[in-house]
Amino acid sequence: MAPDRPHAVPHRVSACVIVIGNEVLSGRTRDANIQMLGAGLASVGVRLTEARVIVDDVDVIVETVNEVRARHDYVFTTGGIGPTHDDMTAEAISKAFGTALERNAEAMARLQNHYGTGELNAARLKMADIPRGAALIDNPVSQAPGFRLGNVFVLAGVPRIAAAMFDSIKHSLAGGPPVVSRAVAAYVREGDLAEPLGAIQDTFNDLDLGSYPFVRNGRLGVSIVARGTDAVRVAAAIAAVAAAMRTLGAEPEAEDPCGSGDSVF
Amino acid sequence: MAPDRPHAVPHRVSACVIVIGNEVLSGRTRDANIQMLGAGLASVGVRLTEARVIVDDVDVIVETVNEVRARHDYVFTTGGIGPTHDDMTAEAISKAFGTALERNAEAMARLQNHYGTGELNAARLKMADIPRGAALIDNPVSQAPGFRLGNVFVLAGVPRIAAAMFDSIKHSLAGGPPVVSRAVAAYVREGDLAEPLGAIQDTFNDLDLGSYPFVRNGRLGVSIVARGTDAVRVAAAIAAVAAAMRTLGAEPEAEDPCGSGDSVF
Repeated sequence: MAPDRPHAVPHRVSACVIVIGNEVLSGRTRDANIQMLGAGLASVGVRLTEARVIVDDVDVIVETVNEVRARHDYVFTTGGIGPTHDDMTAEAISKAFGTALERNAEAMARLQNHYGTGELNAARLKMADIPRGAALIDNPVSQAPGFRLGNVFVLAGVPRIAAAMFDSIKHSLAGGPPVVSRAVAAYVREGDLAEPLGAIQDTFNDLDLGSYPFVRNGRLGVSIVARGTDAVRVAAAIAAVAAAMRTLGAEPEAEDPCGSGDSVF
Repeated sequence: MAPDRPHAVPHRVSACVIVIGNEVLSGRTRDANIQMLGAGLASVGVRLTEARVIVDDVDVIVETVNEVRARHDYVFTTGGIGPTHDDMTAEAISKAFGTALERNAEAMARLQNHYGTGELNAARLKMADIPRGAALIDNPVSQAPGFRLGNVFVLAGVPRIAAAMFDSIKHSLAGGPPVVSRAVAAYVREGDLAEPLGAIQDTFNDLDLGSYPFVRNGRLGVSIVARGTDAVRVAAAIAAVAAAMRTLGAEPEAEDPCGSGDSVF
């Protein structure tokens, strides 16, 4: 019997991000960490397949962490590890794992070194309370560490610190083959390209083809992104899309598959 | 027995956003719709208490929609209602509700009017396939409508279209009292304010006080946001925070509680 897929699909290593932050849900802050982690994980062969934004509430954090850590290879939380009353991630992770939250000597040493003994008040010392058995994650910006417990990585919410923490641990992740992506764009309308694009997706069913319409210089166009672990197949799919764009009378242009970071519509 | 809370807390009307989009999880696109919907819902008295970003997969969409529509007053999806193979939200919503996906005459009329009969190919006609019983949501940008079925609102993923669709339905939502927010900022360090802030939160336990550190002009500071339904209490909490900031030797300044849209760290 012929296999359904022409190319074997390797085990996909999956991750879930949990953004802990009332400020993201209220609309005060536009999250930047999902994008940073999605791109960073892909670079080491891990697929971000789910992200959740939840409220600052211990019970909600516990429930969410326990649900997703059973379903994903890796979980990353962002936010809630500072000194104030609304920082409750370490407490919640302890509860989720049923382990003690205790003063961590190494974390305290880092905070003492950063703040000096005189400034290390009770609120700041809370940032040295780490679940028993966790490994610290360096914070080169403001010292208060993140930590890893099991398959859960606890990062800061401030984007610059979250990115620095992720950089320090990303090479420790056991990813699958890196995900390769390429993109091509043209001034064709998405609805005109849809049928040939669907046929190309059927042919390249080991890849993900995404279609993203845009308006630039007052003209409608579409970007097609191909993602997969086989660079030759990704290139062939993009070539097929480019040919379909030419058939529609447009001149395709290669494009940064990581995009602008913002919709261009 | 004295009540735990000095002010009665009205029923909170809650919402969940489901962002359907591989491009957000891969890091290609930074989502803008969670922020737009979080702020927009708050303005009509609905609290966004959860958001999820999920992959373009019918089974995942069905499972997620059915889980969250039972737990929230309102659910908003964004993305996946275009003409291409990766647009599968309407099909998934039909399956989630166990209702037929059928060609909607009004949607088809709008598409015919927009595209003309000659351009209305099979791919574009897919955008007129709407679950039976759904009410259309206007799309003033590109006509292809969203829809509402039960407590689920299906919006486009393109931020400009999603915002226009939300504007057209937001006044139909049965919200609780509008959420009022105020903010104050000062060049004090979060860890120095944490203890008095915790005491203020204990006093104003009908409000949410959030603490957000920043760096501006090379100086560390913190913004405190108070949110609640009682504007007098919100103002009183912010006054108490400002007094605590002055005690620490800083001059507090009122701030836009909706923030800059980006972390200022």
